[in-house]
Amino acid sequence: MDDLPSGDAPDIPALMRAAVLPAPGQPLQLEVMATPRPQHGEVLVQVAGCGVCHTDLHVMRGEVGFVTPCVLGHEISGTVVEVGDGVRPESGLTPGARVVGGFIMPCGECPACAEGRDDLCRPFFALNRLRGVLYDGSSRLQRSNGESLAMYSMGGLAEYAVVPATGLALLPPELPLVESAVLGCAALTAYGAVRRAADLRVGETVAVIAMGGVGSNVVQMARALGASRVIAVDVDAATLATARNLGATDLVNATNLDPVAAVRDLTGGRGVDVAFEALGTPATFRQGTQILCDGGRLVAIGIAAADAAAHVEITPLVRRSQRIIGSYGARTRTDLPAVGAMAAAGRVRPAATVSRTFTLDDADAAYDALARGDIVGRAVVRMSPPPSEAT
Amino acid sequence: MDDLPSGDAPDIPALMRAAVLPAPGQPLQLEVMATPRPQHGEVLVQVAGCGVCHTDLHVMRGEVGFVTPCVLGHEISGTVVEVGDGVRPESGLTPGARVVGGFIMPCGECPACAEGRDDLCRPFFALNRLRGVLYDGSSRLQRSNGESLAMYSMGGLAEYAVVPATGLALLPPELPLVESAVLGCAALTAYGAVRRAADLRVGETVAVIAMGGVGSNVVQMARALGASRVIAVDVDAATLATARNLGATDLVNATNLDPVAAVRDLTGGRGVDVAFEALGTPATFRQGTQILCDGGRLVAIGIAAADAAAHVEITPLVRRSQRIIGSYGARTRTDLPAVGAMAAAGRVRPAATVSRTFTLDDADAAYDALARGDIVGRAVVRMSPPPSEAT
Amino acid sequence: MDDLPSGDAPDIPALMRAAVLPAPGQPLQLEVMATPRPQHGEVLVQVAGCGVCHTDLHVMRGEVGFVTPCVLGHEISGTVVEVGDGVRPESGLTPGARVVGGFIMPCGECPACAEGRDDLCRPFFALNRLRGVLYDGSSRLQRSNGESLAMYSMGGLAEYAVVPATGLALLPPELPLVESAVLGCAALTAYGAVRRAADLRVGETVAVIAMGGVGSNVVQMARALGASRVIAVDVDAATLATARNLGATDLVNATNLDPVAAVRDLTGGRGVDVAFEALGTPATFRQGTQILCDGGRLVAIGIAAADAAAHVEITPLVRRSQRIIGSYGARTRTDLPAVGAMAAAGRVRPAATVSRTFTLDDADAAYDALARGDIVGRAVVRMSPPPSEAT
Amino acid sequence: MDDLPSGDAPDIPALMRAAVLPAPGQPLQLEVMATPRPQHGEVLVQVAGCGVCHTDLHVMRGEVGFVTPCVLGHEISGTVVEVGDGVRPESGLTPGARVVGGFIMPCGECPACAEGRDDLCRPFFALNRLRGVLYDGSSRLQRSNGESLAMYSMGGLAEYAVVPATGLALLPPELPLVESAVLGCAALTAYGAVRRAADLRVGETVAVIAMGGVGSNVVQMARALGASRVIAVDVDAATLATARNLGATDLVNATNLDPVAAVRDLTGGRGVDVAFEALGTPATFRQGTQILCDGGRLVAIGIAAADAAAHVEITPLVRRSQRIIGSYGARTRTDLPAVGAMAAAGRVRPAATVSRTFTLDDADAAYDALARGDIVGRAVVRMSPPPSEAT
Repeated sequence: MDDLPSGDAPDIPALMRAAVLPAPGQPLQLEVMATPRPQHGEVLVQVAGCGVCHTDLHVMRGEVGFVTPCVLGHEISGTVVEVGDGVRPESGLTPGARVVGGFIMPCGECPACAEGRDDLCRPFFALNRLRGVLYDGSSRLQRSNGESLAMYSMGGLAEYAVVPATGLALLPPELPLVESAVLGCAALTAYGAVRRAADLRVGETVAVIAMGGVGSNVVQMARALGASRVIAVDVDAATLATARNLGATDLVNATNLDPVAAVRDLTGGRGVDVAFEALGTPATFRQGTQILCDGGRLVAIGIAAADAAAHVEITPLVRRSQRIIGSYGARTRTDLPAVGAMAAAGRVRPAATVSRTFTLDDADAAYDALARGDIVGRAVVRMSPPPSEAT
Repeated sequence: MDDLPSGDAPDIPALMRAAVLPAPGQPLQLEVMATPRPQHGEVLVQVAGCGVCHTDLHVMRGEVGFVTPCVLGHEISGTVVEVGDGVRPESGLTPGARVVGGFIMPCGECPACAEGRDDLCRPFFALNRLRGVLYDGSSRLQRSNGESLAMYSMGGLAEYAVVPATGLALLPPELPLVESAVLGCAALTAYGAVRRAADLRVGETVAVIAMGGVGSNVVQMARALGASRVIAVDVDAATLATARNLGATDLVNATNLDPVAAVRDLTGGRGVDVAFEALGTPATFRQGTQILCDGGRLVAIGIAAADAAAHVEITPLVRRSQRIIGSYGARTRTDLPAVGAMAAAGRVRPAATVSRTFTLDDADAAYDALARGDIVGRAVVRMSPPPSEAT
Repeated sequence: MDDLPSGDAPDIPALMRAAVLPAPGQPLQLEVMATPRPQHGEVLVQVAGCGVCHTDLHVMRGEVGFVTPCVLGHEISGTVVEVGDGVRPESGLTPGARVVGGFIMPCGECPACAEGRDDLCRPFFALNRLRGVLYDGSSRLQRSNGESLAMYSMGGLAEYAVVPATGLALLPPELPLVESAVLGCAALTAYGAVRRAADLRVGETVAVIAMGGVGSNVVQMARALGASRVIAVDVDAATLATARNLGATDLVNATNLDPVAAVRDLTGGRGVDVAFEALGTPATFRQGTQILCDGGRLVAIGIAAADAAAHVEITPLVRRSQRIIGSYGARTRTDLPAVGAMAAAGRVRPAATVSRTFTLDDADAAYDALARGDIVGRAVVRMSPPPSEAT
Repeated sequence: MDDLPSGDAPDIPALMRAAVLPAPGQPLQLEVMATPRPQHGEVLVQVAGCGVCHTDLHVMRGEVGFVTPCVLGHEISGTVVEVGDGVRPESGLTPGARVVGGFIMPCGECPACAEGRDDLCRPFFALNRLRGVLYDGSSRLQRSNGESLAMYSMGGLAEYAVVPATGLALLPPELPLVESAVLGCAALTAYGAVRRAADLRVGETVAVIAMGGVGSNVVQMARALGASRVIAVDVDAATLATARNLGATDLVNATNLDPVAAVRDLTGGRGVDVAFEALGTPATFRQGTQILCDGGRLVAIGIAAADAAAHVEITPLVRRSQRIIGSYGARTRTDLPAVGAMAAAGRVRPAATVSRTFTLDDADAAYDALARGDIVGRAVVRMSPPPSEAT
């Protein structure tokens, strides 16, 4: 391991542990590797928590193509330990700052970013998402044998992660450190879906299909933005009971009931103003289109297995002036601080959707539990923080 | 025919001719029947022109369910001959006024109408469209044998038609009477699609799939609202040549070329900001989703055969934050005058999309020609006007 | 009184009491007059409560021109007792229905109404507001000596009032009858200001200048729509204490403090995203412009004495891309039901802003108290209902 | 001059000429000084043209506070000659590229920039505009005596100017180099006013007060975005004749006519949907408020002398739901390329508003002519380009 750079910053160890996906279909394996270091515009974060998200599962199963070996994990909280040059002091990103990382890390300079559309950042889409590299086009992680490792998004299933400053927001002091990891993907995606894609208006009626990490945050966000009614749809009774606590006004257990008929029934035949589809299957997508009122909107959030296509009936869509709106993440630079502020004010409680925590050693077990449907809401992998950082 | 009311208004004959659809699959037949008379809030129009629209074909073929026998025709121009009580004088709807009728005839009082969303008018959708009746729940047309006849929309394939005042707009003096029938459906639908559904912004790039009556109006409207580029896609060379005259900047003949590859090619791989699908087939709908840029919008205008469903790939829609927007007509009370003003100012030329006219006696032949693909743009059935009304 | 129509509806007395303004500057006087009757599209309401609003004071003082003698009162709740023809049954406006009346009573047919902009209804502005007549151009109230009486808006300071169906909304059963009168002006205006004019977004910061009936409803509405901070500004300590109960997060007593400096101070120098000016004086209007952040919006709600003009500094407005937005009422047909639904759901509590009630005999005293600044929030004149209607 | 850096780039002379404002009230003086050099994220432009704008006059007269001595000039075109590090190659900003510089040069990183609101960029406002320094907080220009010189915006009245990459757009090849300087302030401001602030919709009616460089671009832009009518108001007959050529449909010479009465007259008493005020005087600002229709919008563009305040009548603003919208520049990164594309497509012709050109030696005379009202539309100072750059 002579070729690994030595840690020249006093508090940053030269080596760290990370959970590596060797290849699709294989379990995650813990490895020791060089701690990455921030370059221009980047920040090194000591990771406190990393969310366990379905999108990682798609990569682990090979349903979403990605290079391997790689380090997954795109929803983190932690503490700033080192800052590259070119990071504005006004950002507050200085060593010791508590932060949350958004899974969309905009370049800040492309035409989409110049319009504030971080969710459409061209380099992020072209380079990072598809090829597993960060902004400079080269991998940042290096194995002990000298091999390079790809990172999916920020490579957060590790003790340290390098994140561009544009992908970080300060974590308000009111919020717990580890559980607030979920702000960076689940809650951010919920904000994008409810505030940006649906542009939900006070008094509107809502249905949310699938109560995972994103769905349970959508329930809260819809209530916070004034939905008069939020119908939660899922197949698990315990999950639905949790949705009630998060603000759902009506529950539909799709194990027993036809969800389309049930939602129509609950709304006097009218359908809802906005449906959110958070699972990403053709069947639930189609249900989403079938429970809309005239002029209603389906917001599609759930990523599907490659090539999965939903059936959309043309004539009802046209005649009823309905809309289907794809929603990917949100505008990290603007919206991630907004989510933090809403959580700090108690309008939403993303941390309340965290039902279980795992250690980094158990990261693989966490994804197994998720795959089995054993996670209510969200699980978080908790790194081993120094005692003083315990929440 | 003793039970037919006698014409007590001096210039209105007691009897009129109309083209009747006896049953799905049968040809239109000319019949003489009682001239209908306006009730509260309604206006009797002596029809000058009635557009020949694909939606009628769906009814004639039984692909869109509707009661028969009925009188089709939902895109008319003409002259006011009688006005029911309760029609505001400020509307200008007085005998002699030249008018165009929008195929969406809003009640003006339901919650959707109170918001200005004529395209979602509840009574219009519940009663008129599905059951072939007008606002009072009873049919207005009566055969010589005393039977009632349903009307699809305004029953415009006749010498006279009763239309609620909310469905009419004054025709500016600059515009020709007969050909301006197309303002009421084709041009109105184009306005709704471009201005309302797409909310097109200056400088955006556009593709329009299928250059029929609606599509050729969409081309013009997109240019008028500032599209920097309008790619017309069709399978007919003559039709595409016409599209060029209407403002299309690029032509794609889908007979020879894969339209998805061709549009991608023309846009340097990026795709267009907005695609308009005006045919209503699953194949072209899917093409529409495949030629969008990141963040792009597909506006679906074409009505499909019953139950026709398109395949929509979920993951690209979500990851690229794309939208599919159903668009049905427009806001008649607000938008039909706006279309007339644009045409009067020469910004769009809907009448230029009329390539052929037929007499009422030849109405069936007009739909035959449409079904065979022999109509470039739009055909209009011209009633026999008094000499002084000739355009 | 032989020429007064006799009451032919069993429960409607032929005569009623009303508070008449004989001329500007004179006190209100109780008179007995013929109970008005509804015509086409109108509804007769037995008034339960009528709000005591500053705008009436302007008329009483002659600061806003209006014909006299007249009956004031434009914010009512009550019970439907008779319905004119042409009122849609789907509206639910049938005898016995509990209703609230919006002070903007749109014609429903003019171009502004066709777009849903009830607040810009042309006949309402041209006829009713300026000349004190209702839709048919003739006064509806008749004194015992046969003279006609003008009505300002709906003439609600009376036991019965005729209101067009377009000006009424059903009152949800959860809400108290008398106090809910304030939905029709104070709460409706607050909704228009916050939801329509400001288009307030979750997380924005707000200041509200003047905590009268409208201002105290704006405080609630801003919180309900997600304002992160609501700074209430007033000169009365008791009023400010009430504002705190309604959701204000910060209080500024402008008796002791420069409100501009105080708001700047509370916001770290930045100013607020949105300021609402609810008093209508040049001084407070100007303060409103001075407490805005870059890109901020001042929503002007308060009606001023005739010709009162505020100073607006040009260069800061331009350079900071700020906006000044006049806001008059709201879109009655759409927004009054929305306000009722929000109140029924407990998101806002307009009735909580009612601090005092007066009898019709004491109506003049109510306005005296308002003029002296003795009313915290809103006062309501309570008619004498039959015992069964007590709330 | 030993302390000036020597030019180490082959084609960049060490010294350049610039027009210096020694102090308010004094004439511009030509000086030789060190050619500035680009730092991180910056570009050195060989200036071809620099627009002569009223805002500079305010600084020259001391009406807008600014440090002196300084170099004015904030509307330039030219050719890239040197690029600092950190400028993305995808931007196309490489030596030889033809560019236009927007007078708003956003930092690209502050919260306003992250939302795409370049017009509200915090560092630009805080540092550059008020203190005359560029991004690094230190002046870039150095006199031959070693003194530092402030720059107002980009200091474009010089042979070379350093501009951050975020303030530049590529100039389409169809456009002339020198005259296209006006894209960077006059046309950009017009775009911001019409497209962003007014959000003008097709068919709306418009009045433009004052036909200077900005006003004459607003006329064109309003027509290009679909205004049905554009009423140009000015006091100079020659200027008005030019406005006609640029697309104005109606002319009002305010020398002879009361412009408020004249606009009311031309619109049948209704007023216009949008008025643009491009002069910045209290009198014309007030006129702008008085020519609006109900629900109309006044867009204030003109910068006024310090502390100048307009009278705004409160009650009409409120009761008519009108808006006053300050508009400063536009969103440089997004909108400057959009303006260039519109000009390249011939939708607007900003260069056609350039009526005179001056040499750098005559820069002071150019501003004199402007102050006397002798410039129709816009004047441009043309630097002495190498022969091959002649347009």
